[in-house]
Amino acid sequence: MTKRTSFAAMNCSLARALDVVGEWWTLLVVREVYFGRRSFTEMRDTLGIARNILSDRLASLVAGGVLERRTGGSDLRRNEYHLTAKGRDLIPVLVVLMRWGDRWEDDGTGPPIVLTDRDTGAELEPAVVDAATGREIDAGTIGVRPGPGFRPEAWPAPAAGPR
Amino acid sequence: MTKRTSFAAMNCSLARALDVVGEWWTLLVVREVYFGRRSFTEMRDTLGIARNILSDRLASLVAGGVLERRTGGSDLRRNEYHLTAKGRDLIPVLVVLMRWGDRWEDDGTGPPIVLTDRDTGAELEPAVVDAATGREIDAGTIGVRPGPGFRPEAWPAPAAGPR
Repeated sequence: MTKRTSFAAMNCSLARALDVVGEWWTLLVVREVYFGRRSFTEMRDTLGIARNILSDRLASLVAGGVLERRTGGSDLRRNEYHLTAKGRDLIPVLVVLMRWGDRWEDDGTGPPIVLTDRDTGAELEPAVVDAATGREIDAGTIGVRPGPGFRPEAWPAPAAGPR
Repeated sequence: MTKRTSFAAMNCSLARALDVVGEWWTLLVVREVYFGRRSFTEMRDTLGIARNILSDRLASLVAGGVLERRTGGSDLRRNEYHLTAKGRDLIPVLVVLMRWGDRWEDDGTGPPIVLTDRDTGAELEPAVVDAATGREIDAGTIGVRPGPGFRPEAWPAPAAGPR
């Protein structure tokens, strides 16, 4: 699969994030590890992914600091992949994207998986809000301004702005 | 770029979502349109993306119902892309992924872009919470159970479960 110019150089945290996780298989591999399927073989069987692609994805997730590999000593088959703190911090992203899939890519049978609160068992309804005010963040409420890491030369003339 | 088996058939809303948006360029194209860069030429210039790839991405986003194309009558150069409701509903996903990039892919200069509340100008700190309780949703708080659309045959033997 051709990889284009690295997004890492772009002056945008979304682009940088996509440079690490922006590929079809990546988030599904993270899902698998989160669900406790930690070995190459288990992931290959569940995802139906080609051996070389899975191998490639696992290597880039380890290189990107999302997964860490714990070796099984002399038994290579016992290698296990675990989420790092950086990887665990992707789970809320998965959750929000999964809910988008529930809403917009329903095959007519409803959500395959329901998220629950691990302590109470209550169904969770994920929402993206501002931590300070609790106000929902959506396309209609966001403005943007340059942050400390903004490099004007990396951006073209201002667009109309979010709308 | 080789496209593998469609994720749409997988019994998982995350996989189905990735089937629509799970590619390097897709979310950046959504970002551009959200920022008001609506023409092919503007997007190509800002993203530095090859003409054929951008063309391909725009076509699949239109086919996937994320973008709609409004034609400029007889002047093809005036074609504009707009977010549909489904596309606008991706903005919270972008926001959460961007914040992950702010945290984990900082080049040392801080966030390039700061999100603000469009009404008050106050800086936004996006969080993923349960709508009912306001409790933060993260890797440590989630449980899962089969939903109405669950098809046991599409899933392998239960894994250890989220942890």
